[in-house]
Amino acid sequence: MTLEIGVLGYRFMGKAHANAMARLPMFFPDAPEIERIVLVGRDEEALSDAADRLGFSSVSTDWTEVVDEVDVFYNLGPNHVHREPSIAALEAGTPVFCEKPLAPTLEEADEMAETAREAGDDVPAGCAFNYRFVPAIQYAKRLLEAGELGEIQQVRGRYLQDWLVDPEAPWSWRNDEEMAGSGALGDLGSHTVDLLRFLVGSDDLAGEIERVSGHLQTFVDERPVEGGDETRSVTVDDAYTAQLEFENGAVGSLEGTRVAAGHKNDHTIEIHGSEGSLQFSLERLNELEVLRDGNRGYETILVTDEDDPYVDHWWPPGHVLGWEHTFIHENYEFLSAVANGDAFEPNFDDGLAAQQVLDAIERSDEQGEWVSLE
Amino acid sequence: MTLEIGVLGYRFMGKAHANAMARLPMFFPDAPEIERIVLVGRDEEALSDAADRLGFSSVSTDWTEVVDEVDVFYNLGPNHVHREPSIAALEAGTPVFCEKPLAPTLEEADEMAETAREAGDDVPAGCAFNYRFVPAIQYAKRLLEAGELGEIQQVRGRYLQDWLVDPEAPWSWRNDEEMAGSGALGDLGSHTVDLLRFLVGSDDLAGEIERVSGHLQTFVDERPVEGGDETRSVTVDDAYTAQLEFENGAVGSLEGTRVAAGHKNDHTIEIHGSEGSLQFSLERLNELEVLRDGNRGYETILVTDEDDPYVDHWWPPGHVLGWEHTFIHENYEFLSAVANGDAFEPNFDDGLAAQQVLDAIERSDEQGEWVSLE
Amino acid sequence: MTLEIGVLGYRFMGKAHANAMARLPMFFPDAPEIERIVLVGRDEEALSDAADRLGFSSVSTDWTEVVDEVDVFYNLGPNHVHREPSIAALEAGTPVFCEKPLAPTLEEADEMAETAREAGDDVPAGCAFNYRFVPAIQYAKRLLEAGELGEIQQVRGRYLQDWLVDPEAPWSWRNDEEMAGSGALGDLGSHTVDLLRFLVGSDDLAGEIERVSGHLQTFVDERPVEGGDETRSVTVDDAYTAQLEFENGAVGSLEGTRVAAGHKNDHTIEIHGSEGSLQFSLERLNELEVLRDGNRGYETILVTDEDDPYVDHWWPPGHVLGWEHTFIHENYEFLSAVANGDAFEPNFDDGLAAQQVLDAIERSDEQGEWVSLE
Amino acid sequence: MTLEIGVLGYRFMGKAHANAMARLPMFFPDAPEIERIVLVGRDEEALSDAADRLGFSSVSTDWTEVVDEVDVFYNLGPNHVHREPSIAALEAGTPVFCEKPLAPTLEEADEMAETAREAGDDVPAGCAFNYRFVPAIQYAKRLLEAGELGEIQQVRGRYLQDWLVDPEAPWSWRNDEEMAGSGALGDLGSHTVDLLRFLVGSDDLAGEIERVSGHLQTFVDERPVEGGDETRSVTVDDAYTAQLEFENGAVGSLEGTRVAAGHKNDHTIEIHGSEGSLQFSLERLNELEVLRDGNRGYETILVTDEDDPYVDHWWPPGHVLGWEHTFIHENYEFLSAVANGDAFEPNFDDGLAAQQVLDAIERSDEQGEWVSLE
Repeated sequence: MTLEIGVLGYRFMGKAHANAMARLPMFFPDAPEIERIVLVGRDEEALSDAADRLGFSSVSTDWTEVVDEVDVFYNLGPNHVHREPSIAALEAGTPVFCEKPLAPTLEEADEMAETAREAGDDVPAGCAFNYRFVPAIQYAKRLLEAGELGEIQQVRGRYLQDWLVDPEAPWSWRNDEEMAGSGALGDLGSHTVDLLRFLVGSDDLAGEIERVSGHLQTFVDERPVEGGDETRSVTVDDAYTAQLEFENGAVGSLEGTRVAAGHKNDHTIEIHGSEGSLQFSLERLNELEVLRDGNRGYETILVTDEDDPYVDHWWPPGHVLGWEHTFIHENYEFLSAVANGDAFEPNFDDGLAAQQVLDAIERSDEQGEWVSLE
Repeated sequence: MTLEIGVLGYRFMGKAHANAMARLPMFFPDAPEIERIVLVGRDEEALSDAADRLGFSSVSTDWTEVVDEVDVFYNLGPNHVHREPSIAALEAGTPVFCEKPLAPTLEEADEMAETAREAGDDVPAGCAFNYRFVPAIQYAKRLLEAGELGEIQQVRGRYLQDWLVDPEAPWSWRNDEEMAGSGALGDLGSHTVDLLRFLVGSDDLAGEIERVSGHLQTFVDERPVEGGDETRSVTVDDAYTAQLEFENGAVGSLEGTRVAAGHKNDHTIEIHGSEGSLQFSLERLNELEVLRDGNRGYETILVTDEDDPYVDHWWPPGHVLGWEHTFIHENYEFLSAVANGDAFEPNFDDGLAAQQVLDAIERSDEQGEWVSLE
Repeated sequence: MTLEIGVLGYRFMGKAHANAMARLPMFFPDAPEIERIVLVGRDEEALSDAADRLGFSSVSTDWTEVVDEVDVFYNLGPNHVHREPSIAALEAGTPVFCEKPLAPTLEEADEMAETAREAGDDVPAGCAFNYRFVPAIQYAKRLLEAGELGEIQQVRGRYLQDWLVDPEAPWSWRNDEEMAGSGALGDLGSHTVDLLRFLVGSDDLAGEIERVSGHLQTFVDERPVEGGDETRSVTVDDAYTAQLEFENGAVGSLEGTRVAAGHKNDHTIEIHGSEGSLQFSLERLNELEVLRDGNRGYETILVTDEDDPYVDHWWPPGHVLGWEHTFIHENYEFLSAVANGDAFEPNFDDGLAAQQVLDAIERSDEQGEWVSLE
Repeated sequence: MTLEIGVLGYRFMGKAHANAMARLPMFFPDAPEIERIVLVGRDEEALSDAADRLGFSSVSTDWTEVVDEVDVFYNLGPNHVHREPSIAALEAGTPVFCEKPLAPTLEEADEMAETAREAGDDVPAGCAFNYRFVPAIQYAKRLLEAGELGEIQQVRGRYLQDWLVDPEAPWSWRNDEEMAGSGALGDLGSHTVDLLRFLVGSDDLAGEIERVSGHLQTFVDERPVEGGDETRSVTVDDAYTAQLEFENGAVGSLEGTRVAAGHKNDHTIEIHGSEGSLQFSLERLNELEVLRDGNRGYETILVTDEDDPYVDHWWPPGHVLGWEHTFIHENYEFLSAVANGDAFEPNFDDGLAAQQVLDAIERSDEQGEWVSLE
């Protein structure tokens, strides 16, 4: 059986997922067979060009006609387009893979997760937290689950970018509250919250995030519209910080920013337990810094050995992987789940859980006080 | 004229300052002449040994007899012994140099700063924030004051140690609220707050810290008393985190901990401005990471060139300095100020300002909401 | 027109090139159209499996029937199989792309380069020095050619691996002089020599390598044959070192090893000129360390900006590439040259030039004295 | 008993050793008592100033009157002044501590070592290879001697400085063959050779260096004389490289340079054994990178724990030491040996052994072939 795939969105994320799908047969021979059957968008010409380049056999400008015709629906549009098509697909029994953050608002995310639960386990609804699929992150999870760091006491997550440090950088939908929900918080913070939940969120580690204090800040209030003389208002945050307390009492710090000069895509996670520590940075994603086993300092592990997660599919030790490989691993897991009727994680509940934390951060910022999650 | 110095305290800090004083003549020939005339403590035998080793010509077990007899009084005792002798000295017109944090409580710090102001500018009252005197930090300040980082938008300060990560690490006065005031917050946080104030606190940079959200946590509730079977309660924090907002709207994050496995004395400061960034780490204190001048990445500057701050007193480029050199620079500046009747910074007002921030963090933690500083 | 490609070899290098070819249409839309038409090998079953997985439409166990039937012939077999099929293809007017080192011996390399020259410029004969196609390396070349490092005075190249550090690691053709020519020297040294030639070999930089001193060493004399009780002799070097002198008087050091515990694929290049320095390491291939423009320290440049070499074909800044991307860039350039009838570099003359240096290193080792290259 | 010390030389090295002596009582209470009794030089005024600053009670412009009057004689003059006063002192039965390299030529070094052997073990003759006394280096030696790296197979030593990269940097005695013997080779190479001998030179590790191939190069042929219009010829090397073979078959690479832009005092040692590896860099002298115990990557060890070599004399963990501390440890060991009548290493035989290697490198460079050491 070949899974027929429909994809909404053909820019950055469209390209990343199309590439991932195209590479599965050569490197993951046990992945299900798929066909990129329809690419969905609004601008017919751009759409048609993209379909050619990304290997789709047809195009459509109407997602309503697609969601119940395909075997799997990928929703890779901007945040404000996540809800409606995803729900329609799930209601039609079509497995959905939706980009993160799950939705611009908690309400929408809630509705989407509810729909996914109703659709049932054999209609997987995945949320695209691709950084779970970095080999070094999966390796870190192995260490954590084996208890090698002891009791988790402190975590730190930050995601630093600099593409808005120039006040003349142009306005985009990502600067608009209506379309994006929030700024650095939703775009970057959702990744960080999910990674922390993935790594330390289980009951025998730190558990869920229990309460938060948040702070959002916008440094540049309006930005020029590309190709014109106008400016438009920035209605989202350029940067956020947060403090966390986990169920087990562990403390955490979060930060995300689009104005950190010199940091392009610097997503770092640091975890301290009673028996060890670890550090990860996305710009050096093949490496993991680990302190354990009575060692005195961090050991720099190049996570490219044959028995490291996913690595046996690729190249010999030391032949490093790139950012895009996270999408290939993610698509492999998601499409395998669809084909096998298995559950997939991260799912819409994970997307919702991240959203709840982000929403609590935003409310905390407005109220000037800690906010507890239910 | 030779300044006669009396010093209360002969352990870690006593040794660090005695060493600093002893080295001034060879490396800072224009420093005032001094004599280490009396060392103050309680345990006569230990005191006498220490005086021999640290080069003091006499000892005393009664600070009240010392503070008005010497030209300068160093108060290097535990936090709860800061207030009384410092005030007595200042009231006697004796310049005082007091270890940090200025006091266990804001009230005491307030009283000390008030007394120092009354004593007047020609009776310097210094607070021992020695990290201001790292050459790389002074170099960073030069860059910041020259506007090379543009408008300050984000700062991060964290101070990670691991000496309490072992639950069996013994109890000490540093674990006791009465004697220490707080734990990681006061001990480590006071350094971090002061460094941030020093670097970005001026009006044309970020200005003062305006409001804070704080979080304190104790992971190990009681600890064994050394040399016995008993345990005693830990009544201070093992770790704290905080969020900051500065006068100019810049956002900040703070963290201090004594339970970060693998970090011995890891004090890092990171600053992002609209035109550049910088990073400093105490464990590599000869280095500064700087992004500026349209560069694309951080430049690793070894701050050991002849025209770098203080370096002409020492060795040729690349011959690195150590932690103790911060004390020599600090003592040079303080004793020169005393000899010349000049003002000295960081002074008790700086000590108080740091204390106000720490106090606000503590109150925020108790109240679960942001606290504004007046 | 579609180029029909025949490939000899279906293991590590076969997979790397098949992947590269498969990805061209999506990321390099102006690359020529190609068809992976025939895969050549000896073991029919393995071959057939590989052809399926790697996307070839047919297989052959006889390269003689292939080399004149295809539009392009890739020779990815072991070193001792490079000469005969490559020459046959070139004599048939078929462009050839051959893995490195060009041949086990200088004589064979010479004959191959001679044949390539006779075939003429419109029959490109490429030699697979893929590390020329790392964006950071191309960026370094831009800097060097713009004269930003001044007069080149010192270079250092080393390639450290550890897969033979265990004396029980099994014997393979790479340990055999007949089949491989040499050990670390040919396998690793050919890459290093080519990168140095590429970066500083032009006349206005350091020029060609003029004389060398070499040293080869074998630490483990025999190794177990996999799946049996026998051992076989290791007849090649485990490690080599060399000193170089370039035409302009610059000095150089080379080293390659398969027994450097802790180094998986650590290929580093360091260059010092009269006005700057640079450093590159393959395990962090997205980064380049550069000292220039009157800076005081190395600047860590993440070579992932839109106007960095090849990067506009991929992802936004900070989304790092992997090892395999070097093959995609290399195939893009080679196949474009074939389609357009352009010359391609690195070609067989470059392969020969590297071989001449390696041969001189080997002779120097035997003779115990410096050896000049003609 | 108080040892009366006479010191020839009051510039860089004079200051470094005077500082070391001055600090012993506070930090090494069991060090012998000493008195800096006479400082020897030629320029009376400068000498007198220096004596004041460095704590000497008298001065002399005639070393012949000093060497037999003091209990210990430090020879810290330029290389060409090492031989005569050192020999005179030893012949008078006065222990000598001489700066490195031991002499400008092998012949002089030989004569000095011969004299030292004749003077006997109770007249210690130390050679100032201070980098043996870095705690991280001593820690490395512990690991090596415990066999933790297995059989030593490869070593690398390089010492990079940049103070002559500017062709206008002024001429000094260090550029003159008569006075200095050689350039980077003697000045930097002597340190590197000694560290390698110290770390791996014992019989059960790599043993002595058995043969070498050397290469010396001068990039700037003449330099301006400070304060005038003249230039003088540079008659020594700006940079050298060498290949080594040790008794046990281990291979090595050496390099030293004064023209490596961006490197101030970058002395690195790297060692690979059959069971592990280690790396050290002088610019981060508190750290050691170690791979062992079945770890996968290098562990960054901050060698500042209480039971690390010499550290218990200083500060708590993480409070880093500087370059000058190596002199304090060195003086402590040497003066203790003098006081106790013990042998001291590194001694003149070690100085000679380093010189033999450097001489062999120089002869190899002249002859264009490997040179064996007897």
